[in-house]
Amino acid sequence: MTVPAPAQGVFISFEGVDGVGKTTQLQRLSRTLDRLGYRVVVTREPGATPLGAALRELLLDPERAISDRTEALLYAADRADHVETVIRPALHQGSVVLTDRYIDSSVAYQGAGRGLGAAVRRLSAWATDGLIPQVTILLDADPAALAERLRVARGTLDRMESERLDFHRRVRAEFLSLARAEPTRFVVLDALTDEETLARQISSAVAPYLPGGFPFGGGGLR
Amino acid sequence: MTVPAPAQGVFISFEGVDGVGKTTQLQRLSRTLDRLGYRVVVTREPGATPLGAALRELLLDPERAISDRTEALLYAADRADHVETVIRPALHQGSVVLTDRYIDSSVAYQGAGRGLGAAVRRLSAWATDGLIPQVTILLDADPAALAERLRVARGTLDRMESERLDFHRRVRAEFLSLARAEPTRFVVLDALTDEETLARQISSAVAPYLPGGFPFGGGGLR
Repeated sequence: MTVPAPAQGVFISFEGVDGVGKTTQLQRLSRTLDRLGYRVVVTREPGATPLGAALRELLLDPERAISDRTEALLYAADRADHVETVIRPALHQGSVVLTDRYIDSSVAYQGAGRGLGAAVRRLSAWATDGLIPQVTILLDADPAALAERLRVARGTLDRMESERLDFHRRVRAEFLSLARAEPTRFVVLDALTDEETLARQISSAVAPYLPGGFPFGGGGLR
Repeated sequence: MTVPAPAQGVFISFEGVDGVGKTTQLQRLSRTLDRLGYRVVVTREPGATPLGAALRELLLDPERAISDRTEALLYAADRADHVETVIRPALHQGSVVLTDRYIDSSVAYQGAGRGLGAAVRRLSAWATDGLIPQVTILLDADPAALAERLRVARGTLDRMESERLDFHRRVRAEFLSLARAEPTRFVVLDALTDEETLARQISSAVAPYLPGGFPFGGGGLR
């Protein structure tokens, strides 16, 4: 393990159950920050690196039965590679790093959803050598309302998405519990808010963490 | 995680640095036990399961740079899948399970060889839900003597094998240290002993752990 460089950039994660619109909002924030002149790196878990892409195929294959501990370890391996080869180098160069899922997804999905408990958080803490986002945007909504939106949009569901509804409800509850436990890191927003309004809320939430503060004054980024 | 079934069979691991002849001796013991009427399952790490085979390809690819923590997590994922889908079911059916490498290899290679320390053992303990072999056969020899034997036999070296000599010396020292710490589990044998003699030593060492004890009297298995 190389000793990690001190983080100079800003590290922001987007979290929430499937279908809340994380990817859409992350891309919108990326374009906004890009227009403002920030160097932005957009990434995701699992599967952001070549190794991670191979692991993502193994993890999301609906034909493959994977035990809960194996799954948690594969996500942790993907995360270790992601942090080492993408996130830390980008932060070291001063970039704003936006990741679609990070540790909280593992804690919510494997820890609470599958009953693996605190071991999952310890795995991730070791895998990342303790790297935590400055801000985590949690997009929150009832899974039943989201499932229908997702099914219409994509036409198909992968293995994670086709898990039963009560699983997603446990995951949602765990995300909200994580947010209550770390109120200074988490920003919880209603995912069913219209897209434009939500984008403004997210910009306002991240503005205080950016070098230069509020580039557009008290109202935050536009 | 399913609750593991109580182990009914006998679990034996073979350990040592590359080129000590683990595979040869494991196969010989398997044939001996098979002739004696034991149900034997021969397996290995990494790569004994379909998932593990995919991970083994990722791990042993000489072209791919993998960070130390990522590597340790992938080995742990392989092990979790191996225990869950191969080893525990075989033990539950009363088989003698012979594995070519197990937890001690991770501790020696990633823990000591790469400096990751005790975290590697904790990873494996969690991945396996605490499953430890009754007997571990450590085949021991100086890595310099073994490297030449291996190069002649195979004509090529994979990524792990082409690591530098002092790495293999640290690994050997860690294996010996593990054996000193658990003298009732480990049986340390000189890998440069002739193959026939070594096979008899191994049979004698495992005989007390087999159902039926010493099938051929005080001299152990033949």
